[in-house]
Amino acid sequence: MPYTAELIAVGTELLLGNIANTDAQMLSKGLSALGIHVYYHTVVGDNPERLRAAVEIARRRADILITTGGLGPTCDDLTKTVLAQCFGKELVYNSEAEERCRAFFQSIGREMTDNNHQQFYLPEGATVFQNDWGTAPGCGFEAEGVRVLMLPGPPRECTAMFQHRAVPYLQGLSDGVIVSRTLKLFGIGESGMESLLREKMNAMHNPTLAPYAKEGECELRITAKAESESAARALIAPVEEELRALFGDKIYGADLSSLEEAVLALLKEKGLTMGSAESCTGGLIAKRITDLPGSSAVFRGGVVSYATQVKHTVLGVPEELLEQYGAVSEPVARAMAEGARRVLGCDLAVSTTGVAGPDSDERGNPVGLVYVALATSEGTHVRKLHAGTGRERVRTAAAHNAFDLVRRYCAGLAL
Amino acid sequence: MPYTAELIAVGTELLLGNIANTDAQMLSKGLSALGIHVYYHTVVGDNPERLRAAVEIARRRADILITTGGLGPTCDDLTKTVLAQCFGKELVYNSEAEERCRAFFQSIGREMTDNNHQQFYLPEGATVFQNDWGTAPGCGFEAEGVRVLMLPGPPRECTAMFQHRAVPYLQGLSDGVIVSRTLKLFGIGESGMESLLREKMNAMHNPTLAPYAKEGECELRITAKAESESAARALIAPVEEELRALFGDKIYGADLSSLEEAVLALLKEKGLTMGSAESCTGGLIAKRITDLPGSSAVFRGGVVSYATQVKHTVLGVPEELLEQYGAVSEPVARAMAEGARRVLGCDLAVSTTGVAGPDSDERGNPVGLVYVALATSEGTHVRKLHAGTGRERVRTAAAHNAFDLVRRYCAGLAL
Repeated sequence: MPYTAELIAVGTELLLGNIANTDAQMLSKGLSALGIHVYYHTVVGDNPERLRAAVEIARRRADILITTGGLGPTCDDLTKTVLAQCFGKELVYNSEAEERCRAFFQSIGREMTDNNHQQFYLPEGATVFQNDWGTAPGCGFEAEGVRVLMLPGPPRECTAMFQHRAVPYLQGLSDGVIVSRTLKLFGIGESGMESLLREKMNAMHNPTLAPYAKEGECELRITAKAESESAARALIAPVEEELRALFGDKIYGADLSSLEEAVLALLKEKGLTMGSAESCTGGLIAKRITDLPGSSAVFRGGVVSYATQVKHTVLGVPEELLEQYGAVSEPVARAMAEGARRVLGCDLAVSTTGVAGPDSDERGNPVGLVYVALATSEGTHVRKLHAGTGRERVRTAAAHNAFDLVRRYCAGLAL
Repeated sequence: MPYTAELIAVGTELLLGNIANTDAQMLSKGLSALGIHVYYHTVVGDNPERLRAAVEIARRRADILITTGGLGPTCDDLTKTVLAQCFGKELVYNSEAEERCRAFFQSIGREMTDNNHQQFYLPEGATVFQNDWGTAPGCGFEAEGVRVLMLPGPPRECTAMFQHRAVPYLQGLSDGVIVSRTLKLFGIGESGMESLLREKMNAMHNPTLAPYAKEGECELRITAKAESESAARALIAPVEEELRALFGDKIYGADLSSLEEAVLALLKEKGLTMGSAESCTGGLIAKRITDLPGSSAVFRGGVVSYATQVKHTVLGVPEELLEQYGAVSEPVARAMAEGARRVLGCDLAVSTTGVAGPDSDERGNPVGLVYVALATSEGTHVRKLHAGTGRERVRTAAAHNAFDLVRRYCAGLAL
C-alpha cells in the first residue's frame, strides 16, 4: 500500500484571495515523485478552531499530514500551537533556529525584531527543518500513526525546505515509485485531443493517461507505478511511442516546462542565436526566454517597439510600409523581424504585431488579430493568427506562436 | 448572520501539481466582496467517492457550496453526476447549452466533437449558467438548505462565469457588505512592518488589519463589515490615515495590483512617456507595464540588450565603458538608461544591469548585484541593489526598483 498524504495550507490571505495556493502545487509534484499519493488539499484561515477541525478530518484519511504557512513572526501565525495540541505535544525552544535567524537578518542587512522569537518554539521530539532561506524553521514528527510535517508559507522558503529537509525525511517511507512523463503539444485543442484518446484512456490502468489543457497548449501525462523507476519507465515507453505516432510534430517535447525551453535547447544544439522585435507582446517573448538560465548563450536581445515610430527609428521599418499597411500587417511583421535580425546581429529573429485589446486598433483591426514573423538566413515566414479575445490570451498565443516558428525552423519542420 | 461558502475544486491535475488552484483565489476575492465568508477551500481528484466525501463534509459546514472543474468534455469530468447524486437531483438535457457550444466551436474554427455532449446535462430545476467563454455550462440550485453552484475549471471561463452568472445569482443572499482596502508598500519587510503594528492589530476587530508579504513587496489589508459600502468605508478611512502617517512614502498606493499600475497612472497624470533598457531583467519591465491596458499611451518601447555588444550597437553605450567597468557597473547602467531615452525618444528611461544567476559573471560580480538607473531631462540616478539569490527573485527585485524610481521621480519624492 502506498502512503497517502494530505496538505493543509493555513492563512487567511488564501481565503481572502490575496494569493493562490502555489505551495500545494509544488508539494503535490514532489510527493507524487516520491510515490506518495495526494488525495486532498485543504485551505483554512488563521483560526485555531477551524484549523483543528481540518486536522481532525485529515488525520483520519491520510498517513502523512503536511501543513504550509502559519509559522512566521506575525501574531496570526498559530500552526505549531494548534498541531502540537492536536497531537499532544509540548512546544520547546530551539536555540539553533534563533542563531540561524539572526544570521539571516544580518545577511539581508536588517535587525531581527523581537516578534521573531515565537518562531523558535517547536514540538518536543520533532526533527527540526532549519530554514536557510528565511526565518521560520519547520519540523516533522510522528504521533498516533500519522507523520506530521510543518513547512513555512512563503513559496521560496516552502520549496527549498521541502526539497532539502522534508524530502530526505520522507524518502524512507515510500514503497515503489510513481513516474510520470508529460508530452507537450502545441496546435491542438483539449477536446480534439481527448476525443482521439478517450477509449484508450478508459482502457488504461497502469500506466494511466491524462490530458490537460493550458492557455493555448495541451499536455498528455503518462503515469506509471512500479517497483523501480526503470520498471516504471519501461511501462511508459510504448505508450509514448504510440502517442508520438498519433500526434506527430504537434508534440514539441517531453517533461519540458515550456515551448521556450524546447527552443533554447534546439538553438544551443544548432549553434544559432536569436533576437526579437515585439509590439503586441511588449517584451513577453524576451522575458520568457530569459527566464531560463543559460539563455544568454543564444538570446542576443530584443526590441520592444511599442510605439509605431520606434518600429521605424530602431528597427528600420520603412515609413511607407507603416503608412500604407499600418503597424498591424503582414509586411510590417516581416520588416520588424528582418530589422531585428540586422540590428541585433542574430541568426534568427521573431516579431509580433497585433491587437491585444481591450480595443481594436485605429484601422479597425479586431482584437486578437496578430502577425508573427520569423526571419532567418533563408528568408522570412509570417503566420497570421486570430487569437480570440482577452489581452493576456492574445499576448500568450502570440508568444507561443513565435516560439513555435523557431522550434519548427530549428527542427527542420514545415512552418 | 453572514452566509458562509466553501470551495471544492475537482481535478486530479491539481493533486498532481500540474496547476495551482487559481480559481479558488479569484472566487475568494469575489465572495468576500459580496460579504460572504469563505472558511475552507478543498481540492479533490477526479474520483467520485472522494468528491462525494468532500461534499458531505462541506455541506454540513457551509450555506453555499461552489465547485470548480469537472464539467468539461473529457471522460474524467464527473462533478455534475456526483453533485446531482449527493443532492438527489436528476440530470436533464439542456439544448440551449448545445447550441451555444456549437456556436463557440464555429467562432474558433473547430468542429464540435461528440464527446462534448455530456456537458449539456444539468441537474433538474437548476439555474443554467450559460458559458459564452468556452464549452461547458455551469449551474446553481438550492437543495436541503444548501445553495450549490458549479463552475468550469479553466480560469478564464471560471472567472467570466462567476462575474456574469454566479454573482447576480448570489447577490440576493448577502446581508451587509465587507469592504477591503489594501495599502501597497515597497521598501519594508513583513516582520519589520508587523512589529510596528502588532499591538494595534490585536486591538482591532472592525475594521481588521492584516499584513501580507509578496516577493519584494508588502501589503496591509484593512477590512470592514457594515450595513452599507459607505458605512464600511467610513470605518476604514481613519485607519488608512494612521497607516499613511506611519509608513509615509513607502506606501505607493491603495487597491492597486502592482507598482507598474501606480507608475502608469502617474505617467498619464504628468503627461510623460517612458522607455526601458534591460539586461538582467530581459524584458520583464516592458512586459509588466504592457500587461496593463492603456500602457501604449505612455510606454514607447524598450531595448533588451542581453548581449554586451547590443548595449553598444543599439543603445550606444561606449565600448570603453564596457571594457573598463564591465557590463554590470554603475557607469554602464547610467549609459544604458541615457541611451534608451535617446534612442526611444521618451521623457524618461529606466535600465537594469546585474547578475541574475545562477552563476556570478565573468568579472566575479556576485549573483544579486544589480544596478538600476533612471534617466530624465534633469539627469540620471543610479540605485545599487543586493537582491539576494534566485534568478526570479533578482529579476523581480530589479524590476520593482526600476518602477519605484519612476514612481518617486513622478511623485516628486527623493530617489
